Amino acid sequence: MQQLKSMRDLMEVARNAPRRTVAVSAAADEDILASVGAAMSAGLADFVLFGDLRRIREIAAAISVDLASFEIVDVPDAAESAKAAVALVSGGRADIVMKGLVESGIFIKALLDPLAGLRIDGNIISAIAVMEMRELDRLLFITDPGFIPAPDLATKKKIIGNAVGVMKKLGIAVPKVAVLCAAETVSEKIISTVEARKLQELNENGEIPDCVVAGPISLDLAVSEKSASHKKYVHPVAGKADLLVVPTIEVGNVLYKSMTYFAHVATGGVVAGTRSPVIFTSRSDTAETKLHTIALAVYLAKEER
Amino acid sequence: MQQLKSMRDLMEVARNAPRRTVAVSAAADEDILASVGAAMSAGLADFVLFGDLRRIREIAAAISVDLASFEIVDVPDAAESAKAAVALVSGGRADIVMKGLVESGIFIKALLDPLAGLRIDGNIISAIAVMEMRELDRLLFITDPGFIPAPDLATKKKIIGNAVGVMKKLGIAVPKVAVLCAAETVSEKIISTVEARKLQELNENGEIPDCVVAGPISLDLAVSEKSASHKKYVHPVAGKADLLVVPTIEVGNVLYKSMTYFAHVATGGVVAGTRSPVIFTSRSDTAETKLHTIALAVYLAKEER
Repeated sequence: MQQLKSMRDLMEVARNAPRRTVAVSAAADEDILASVGAAMSAGLADFVLFGDLRRIREIAAAISVDLASFEIVDVPDAAESAKAAVALVSGGRADIVMKGLVESGIFIKALLDPLAGLRIDGNIISAIAVMEMRELDRLLFITDPGFIPAPDLATKKKIIGNAVGVMKKLGIAVPKVAVLCAAETVSEKIISTVEARKLQELNENGEIPDCVVAGPISLDLAVSEKSASHKKYVHPVAGKADLLVVPTIEVGNVLYKSMTYFAHVATGGVVAGTRSPVIFTSRSDTAETKLHTIALAVYLAKEER
Repeated sequence: MQQLKSMRDLMEVARNAPRRTVAVSAAADEDILASVGAAMSAGLADFVLFGDLRRIREIAAAISVDLASFEIVDVPDAAESAKAAVALVSGGRADIVMKGLVESGIFIKALLDPLAGLRIDGNIISAIAVMEMRELDRLLFITDPGFIPAPDLATKKKIIGNAVGVMKKLGIAVPKVAVLCAAETVSEKIISTVEARKLQELNENGEIPDCVVAGPISLDLAVSEKSASHKKYVHPVAGKADLLVVPTIEVGNVLYKSMTYFAHVATGGVVAGTRSPVIFTSRSDTAETKLHTIALAVYLAKEER
């Protein structure tokens, strides 16, 4: 299959994918309704909205979103609406679940429910951000910028596995993985560098398959061939990283936010490790980011039936 | 005094400051000689170069830097050249010391030498990056993106003190300080958030003076009033941060690099906590960044005689 290289590619293939149904929890929110309205208009998916019916109607009217094509289920309680939306997907009547105006913790609890949830035994659930920047000829992925505060070595290994799985579905045959640190040298005093080298070794030994891992490596060496050559850092990933693995949630959050606020890049996001795609956007994401994220989930869902 | 709001302001005041002398260690490097050549031409300072005399002459000839106005001291060994450059400053015959092509560890050891070094008893030495971005009407400072891998609470307090001291010299009367985390809520499981709140409380109790501290706070809430308002985060620092305090070196490094590589902002840097300013640039810094950093040190030196 073709490799997706830009958000435009993504929107295009998602529009041409089989039409899927998205179950939206706690949909009574202006941002959520605006983004599902835009996604419906763009022909990306159908939506079932769970939430406070009266509030959904009020908000939709205020922002001129036409609800005629939406199925709406009146579940005023946010936690209950999360459970109901997840259950619709695990029951097979919808393909994708979307977080609405519900606390992340409550939404994740519904995702992880042993009976009605979407967890795969033995998997972890991790977040992946996707960015398109004019300096690079490819999409750049970041994991995990949102779910797991301070992953240990075993968890980082699973986080990489989750992301590589998603990236392969997007046509990136052998993702180049950069385990980010503050420098490219191993220092016993800095645990992130020790674990990064260990991940590179595990990859070399075949224990992290289907990708090429470099670590420790700093951001400039991961994305700039010029910097890598200047610092005489030689590795197949040097300057060519597809995936950045961050050591902590603070690094992922700051990287994502600085690219969003100061580099003004187009972004999207996805949740990996679940049986069906999950649309998980933040209040601070732009409407465009929310639309990219819906497209990504729709595209990933096409592989899963 | 006037507040410096841009790198242009900085270059202007540095050019008009009393002319200072910079002692450069391990100067036999193309980047170093190019930047001191440019600083000399810009009228920023005089330079004494320590290093391998023959190599310095060869490199200068190759890149057309005229050495006529430079004093050069032949010290081929990098560690010895660091000691000699620091000693020239601690002895009062130069005002500022500059790291050249010498390992950071060796250079810092010379800085910290109890007899000939530039350390102030009880102080820590920390790095401060300065950035100018078109979205903001002010310079944005980041600390510590380079020296201290994982500062504890007491060290973070001193890091803030160092930065506030520098910023006051640059005319920022009461710096607004954002202690960066991945979110604005305190979570017992995430130590960065617990310490960030503690720093805010220490500031409220007067134990971190001459500034206003907010924490925990995410990057978007620190720099974007729109984001802060969207997330209903209310604090004098919201959207108005002058200084970002990072929890670990990885966060600082990634933030600095992402702004440099993807947002293309003008940057500079400074080392705080020493008796005299220190010019400490990285190989990956651009010639422009090196020039800004020299200007910053020259400007800060003007206050110290």
